[in-house]
Amino acid sequence: MSHKEEGPSGFQQLLGYRLAHWEDGHAILELEVEHKHTNRAGVLHGGVLATLIDTACGFSATYCPVPGRVRRVVTLSLSTNFTGQVRHGLIQAVARRVSGGSRIVFCHADVFDAAGKLLGSGQGTFRFRTGSEHPEGVAL
Amino acid sequence: MSHKEEGPSGFQQLLGYRLAHWEDGHAILELEVEHKHTNRAGVLHGGVLATLIDTACGFSATYCPVPGRVRRVVTLSLSTNFTGQVRHGLIQAVARRVSGGSRIVFCHADVFDAAGKLLGSGQGTFRFRTGSEHPEGVAL
Amino acid sequence: MSHKEEGPSGFQQLLGYRLAHWEDGHAILELEVEHKHTNRAGVLHGGVLATLIDTACGFSATYCPVPGRVRRVVTLSLSTNFTGQVRHGLIQAVARRVSGGSRIVFCHADVFDAAGKLLGSGQGTFRFRTGSEHPEGVAL
Amino acid sequence: MSHKEEGPSGFQQLLGYRLAHWEDGHAILELEVEHKHTNRAGVLHGGVLATLIDTACGFSATYCPVPGRVRRVVTLSLSTNFTGQVRHGLIQAVARRVSGGSRIVFCHADVFDAAGKLLGSGQGTFRFRTGSEHPEGVAL
Repeated sequence: MSHKEEGPSGFQQLLGYRLAHWEDGHAILELEVEHKHTNRAGVLHGGVLATLIDTACGFSATYCPVPGRVRRVVTLSLSTNFTGQVRHGLIQAVARRVSGGSRIVFCHADVFDAAGKLLGSGQGTFRFRTGSEHPEGVAL
Repeated sequence: MSHKEEGPSGFQQLLGYRLAHWEDGHAILELEVEHKHTNRAGVLHGGVLATLIDTACGFSATYCPVPGRVRRVVTLSLSTNFTGQVRHGLIQAVARRVSGGSRIVFCHADVFDAAGKLLGSGQGTFRFRTGSEHPEGVAL
Repeated sequence: MSHKEEGPSGFQQLLGYRLAHWEDGHAILELEVEHKHTNRAGVLHGGVLATLIDTACGFSATYCPVPGRVRRVVTLSLSTNFTGQVRHGLIQAVARRVSGGSRIVFCHADVFDAAGKLLGSGQGTFRFRTGSEHPEGVAL
Repeated sequence: MSHKEEGPSGFQQLLGYRLAHWEDGHAILELEVEHKHTNRAGVLHGGVLATLIDTACGFSATYCPVPGRVRRVVTLSLSTNFTGQVRHGLIQAVARRVSGGSRIVFCHADVFDAAGKLLGSGQGTFRFRTGSEHPEGVAL
C-alpha cells in the first residue's frame, strides 16, 4: 500500500489515527478517542472530527496503485456538521469520492462511534496537485 | 480570565495553541507551526486550521466576565475555506461573533501567517449549552 | 398531504418546483429546468440548486401526519458542493434527515439530472420552530 | 460596464435583483423583497439569500475592465449561515474577493436588510473558466 511506504504525516502521528482501508474512491480512518482529543467540555473536539473528515476524504481521492508513487490533493473547502458527541472509544471516518473531473474532486465522509452512532458528516472540495490527476500519480 | 482558571483542554495541550486575546465577541488563538502539525505534503494540516477556527469562534461566543464561571457552546456546523499554505512560524486565528440570539450564535474566523497572509477563513454555527446563554454562565 | 393543503410558497411558485414525494425523514422535489433558471453562462444557476437542497432538506425534517397541521424549521446553515451542470430537463432533489434531536436537525440532499448525473450535494442544519419539535406540529 | 452590455441572466430576471456596484474584487447586489421571494413561513426564502451570495461573490471575482469582454467562474462550493429574517423591503448583498490565485478564487458576502441588520453570510470557492483567469477575460 503506497501509504505505508510513505509513512504517516506529522499530524497523523500526533493524533494517532490510522488508515484502516484504502481503495480507489474509498478510505476509512480509525481513531481511539482519548483525553488528548477532547475539548473544554470533555468530549471529542470538533477539530478532530474535521481532521478525520478532511483526511479520509483526501485519501479517498488519491489512491495510487503504483508502488513508490503517490497522489496529492489540496483541500479548497470543507463543511462539517456535528451530530453527536463521544468521550472515548473507537471511531471511524468513512469517506468516498462523490464526483470529480481532471482537476477538482468532491468527497463526503461520515464519522461513527463504536456503536454506529453518527458523530458528524462532512463534504469537501479538493484540487489535484499537478501530476496527481492521473491514477499513476507522481514519484514519492 | 476565566479560561486560565479553567486550564487548557486535552486537545489544546496536544496541539499547543494558546488563547492570546479574549473579550466578549472576540478571541485570538496563536500557534507555532511545527512538523507535528503538518500533512503528507509537509504543510500545515487542514485539520489544524479547522481546529483553530472552531475553537477561536467558540471562545468569541463564550466570554464570561464572572470569576469561577464559564460558558459553553456546541458546534453545530463549521465551514472552512483554505486559501494559503504554511510550513512553519507563528499563525493567528482571529474570531468574532457575527450574530446571535439566545440559543444560537454565528461566528467567523480568519487565520493568518506571520506575514499577514490569509491561510483560511471559516464560519460556524453554535448552540449554547443550557445556562450559557447569559453572560454570567454556569459554575465551573 | 399537509403540504397540498397548505399550498406552495411564493418562491416555490416563482421557480416552479413541486414536491414529488414526502414522508417522515425523506422528501423529493422536482423541477423542469428552463431558461429562467439559468445563469450568465446559460447553465442552471447555483442558487436554484441551493434552493432545492435547502427546501428538500426542510421538507424531509418537517413531515406532519396530522391533517390541518404543519411543522416548521428555520435553516441555520447550508453548505453546497456543485458537481455538475445542466441546461434543461427534469432534475430531482432527494433529501433525507441524517440526524437530529428535539431542537436541531441535520439533513442531506443530492440533486440529479434526468440521466442520473449528480449536479450537487448539500448538507444543512435546521432549528425547529417552537411547537414543531413534535410530529403533530402546530395548527396551520 | 461589461455586465450591462451582457444583459441579465434568466434567473436574475426571474428574481429581479440588480447589480448596484461592481469593481475589481467587489460587487453589491440589491433586491426588493416581495411575496414571490418568500418561503412557507412568509419570510425571505433561504434560497434567495444563497442565490444573492453566490451571484454577488461571482461578480466580485469576475470584473472585466475591457468593453465587450467578460470573465466567468464556476461555483465549486458555497456555505451560507442564516442569521436573520425579513419579509419585505430592500436588501443588499455585499461581496468581496478574499483570496485567490490563477485558477481558484475565494469570496465572501454579507446580506443586509434596509436597516442594516445582517440576514446571512456566505463564503464560496470558485474556479475560473478557461481564459477568465486574466483581467481581460474572453470575448462575449
